Amino acid sequence: MEQPIRYELIKKDKKTGARRGRIYTPHGIIETPVFMPVGTQATVKAMTPDELKEMVDAKIILGNTYHLFLRPGDELVRDAGGLHKFMNWDRAILTDSGGFQVFSLSDLRNISEEGVGFKSHLDGSSLFISPEKSISIQNNLGSDIMMCFDECVPYPADYEYTKSSMERTTRWAERCKKAHKNPERQGLFGIVQGGMYKDLRKESAKQLIELDFPGYAVGGLSVGEPAELMYDVLAETTPYLPEDKPRYLMGVGSPDYLIEAVFRGIDMCDCVLPTRIARNGTAMTTNGKVVVRNATYERDFTPLDPECDCYTCKNYTRAYIRHLIKCGEILGARLLSIHNLRFLVRLMENVRKAIEDDRLTEFRDEFYSKYYHK
Amino acid sequence: MEQPIRYELIKKDKKTGARRGRIYTPHGIIETPVFMPVGTQATVKAMTPDELKEMVDAKIILGNTYHLFLRPGDELVRDAGGLHKFMNWDRAILTDSGGFQVFSLSDLRNISEEGVGFKSHLDGSSLFISPEKSISIQNNLGSDIMMCFDECVPYPADYEYTKSSMERTTRWAERCKKAHKNPERQGLFGIVQGGMYKDLRKESAKQLIELDFPGYAVGGLSVGEPAELMYDVLAETTPYLPEDKPRYLMGVGSPDYLIEAVFRGIDMCDCVLPTRIARNGTAMTTNGKVVVRNATYERDFTPLDPECDCYTCKNYTRAYIRHLIKCGEILGARLLSIHNLRFLVRLMENVRKAIEDDRLTEFRDEFYSKYYHK
Repeated sequence: MEQPIRYELIKKDKKTGARRGRIYTPHGIIETPVFMPVGTQATVKAMTPDELKEMVDAKIILGNTYHLFLRPGDELVRDAGGLHKFMNWDRAILTDSGGFQVFSLSDLRNISEEGVGFKSHLDGSSLFISPEKSISIQNNLGSDIMMCFDECVPYPADYEYTKSSMERTTRWAERCKKAHKNPERQGLFGIVQGGMYKDLRKESAKQLIELDFPGYAVGGLSVGEPAELMYDVLAETTPYLPEDKPRYLMGVGSPDYLIEAVFRGIDMCDCVLPTRIARNGTAMTTNGKVVVRNATYERDFTPLDPECDCYTCKNYTRAYIRHLIKCGEILGARLLSIHNLRFLVRLMENVRKAIEDDRLTEFRDEFYSKYYHK
Repeated sequence: MEQPIRYELIKKDKKTGARRGRIYTPHGIIETPVFMPVGTQATVKAMTPDELKEMVDAKIILGNTYHLFLRPGDELVRDAGGLHKFMNWDRAILTDSGGFQVFSLSDLRNISEEGVGFKSHLDGSSLFISPEKSISIQNNLGSDIMMCFDECVPYPADYEYTKSSMERTTRWAERCKKAHKNPERQGLFGIVQGGMYKDLRKESAKQLIELDFPGYAVGGLSVGEPAELMYDVLAETTPYLPEDKPRYLMGVGSPDYLIEAVFRGIDMCDCVLPTRIARNGTAMTTNGKVVVRNATYERDFTPLDPECDCYTCKNYTRAYIRHLIKCGEILGARLLSIHNLRFLVRLMENVRKAIEDDRLTEFRDEFYSKYYHK
């Protein structure tokens, strides 16, 4: 059987672990490294699919299995023709497993070998997600890339708990693979766990590779640990992953995390950060964060980011966007979301170009000096 | 001096008072009768200017003097290059006088011959708007059409109060005209008052016509009186207005009010209704209102209005829009706002066509039978 998800390694950076590649999906080709906007509830907040294409140039977005299971329900989405058709998005979609949200959003979790019982954060109803259930939901959603149901261990966690959880995640991955009904249309990725313990990360990678997934995620990072520790664990994990499969670091979206992840061999990242801070009135710009709701921008009739090519920066001023945010106007959240998403997507475009030109380290240093003033 | 606002009467309907016309403004030509979306705080809620052009085909929008005076302040807007440039809208803008909002939104109003003192609904600060102040604000905003500062008498109101208020509105109109600094760039409309008293309406029209404005509004209607009374007063007012000037009925936006106003010789209407009910999850459709948040639409995979040509109806289903509204997603408010605005703008396109084709009454009856099921 031909895999629906294939990875092509175009170039390896000589000085770092960075990779320039390409992911082939049933809904288009994705140049990597790539940033993926998050569309939690079948919508990237405040955006239309057309804007994601034309203004952001996103090639792939995320959907959240936990949220869509609760609302509107995966069977409804299936009956609508799948998530692509339901939300009018014809490019690639990746769905997570629901595991992370079960642990972070729901109440009264009860983890067993069978799966996780929890109460809905919406109405308190008792629900259960097993590996088989997660896969069934994702099959109904019809995403291009699905994730295995895993336990995301909190930080800090002791060695014994982390080890047994990681081993269960492997057993769950095996069950996920067995339960998968559409392997010819949807690619299922394994998720490497193992907390901050390098030997467990190595062992997790080894066990998952034996199951032969078309891609691998690194889970359980960016969960409260120091950045240096995250970088360190990542650097000790990716070398154990196969070179001919894509690698996805889950849930990171700040510019430094994206760049450092690429340095350590990551191809895909996602995060709600750009749209969340947008709604709060903050822009990511070439020269660092701009909290546009601040009084200092009241009469600033310049664009958010003079170096930006986005719709927002070509048409609106900081003073106008500040006015909209101060008034709670939807357009303010929209304009900042467009800009922040475009900023991260373009950052990854520049990262890809830098890898091609053998100047990734120089690019990083120049970017940091302007963005972080260091 | 050439007036910046000119009206061309193209055709009078033989059977009704309806007029097919054209308003020339410094920012484009407006075919009338026309519906004008409301952009209270320098944004038509949830919409970009480009969407208003491309998806709605709005030729003119409103800005609210009261709101813009409070936030971001008319001097800031002036320094940004005027309201058109501030909000990135290069078609026509009409600003109201602030009078209606002073009476409906602010606390502790104190009306004198000089003007109206009130407390801001935002922070309780004491403010004062006189006819001169209203004109100064509107001159700073730079709208194409400005309105005279008036008192909107509540319903019911006794004859004596209504009469003295109407006479003061005339004196204020005279002061507005004198205070107007840019009569070559901005057209100032008079507002006919007189409550529900036909002789006062006639007298108000007569007094304002003597002041020779380039257009006239009918104010003080749709303030709680029965629809039939409103239609009656309107029918007794418009015959006293000059045929060669545009006529604007303020603050009506339901389909029947729009059509009945056109029957009685009105050329322009505005209302927040389409965008307000959009955010609450209600669509106006050919077959009447659709409260899309209702459970009945949970699995309705058809468009909001099968006869509609808008972006929303071409791309999204009722089930999807219901999901968005139920989740409080911004995109739900956006898609319904696009649809409702397009619905009213297209309604007026059809009204214009019906006047041209001498079949306005037939059009009205057909529309009512489908929309109101009567």
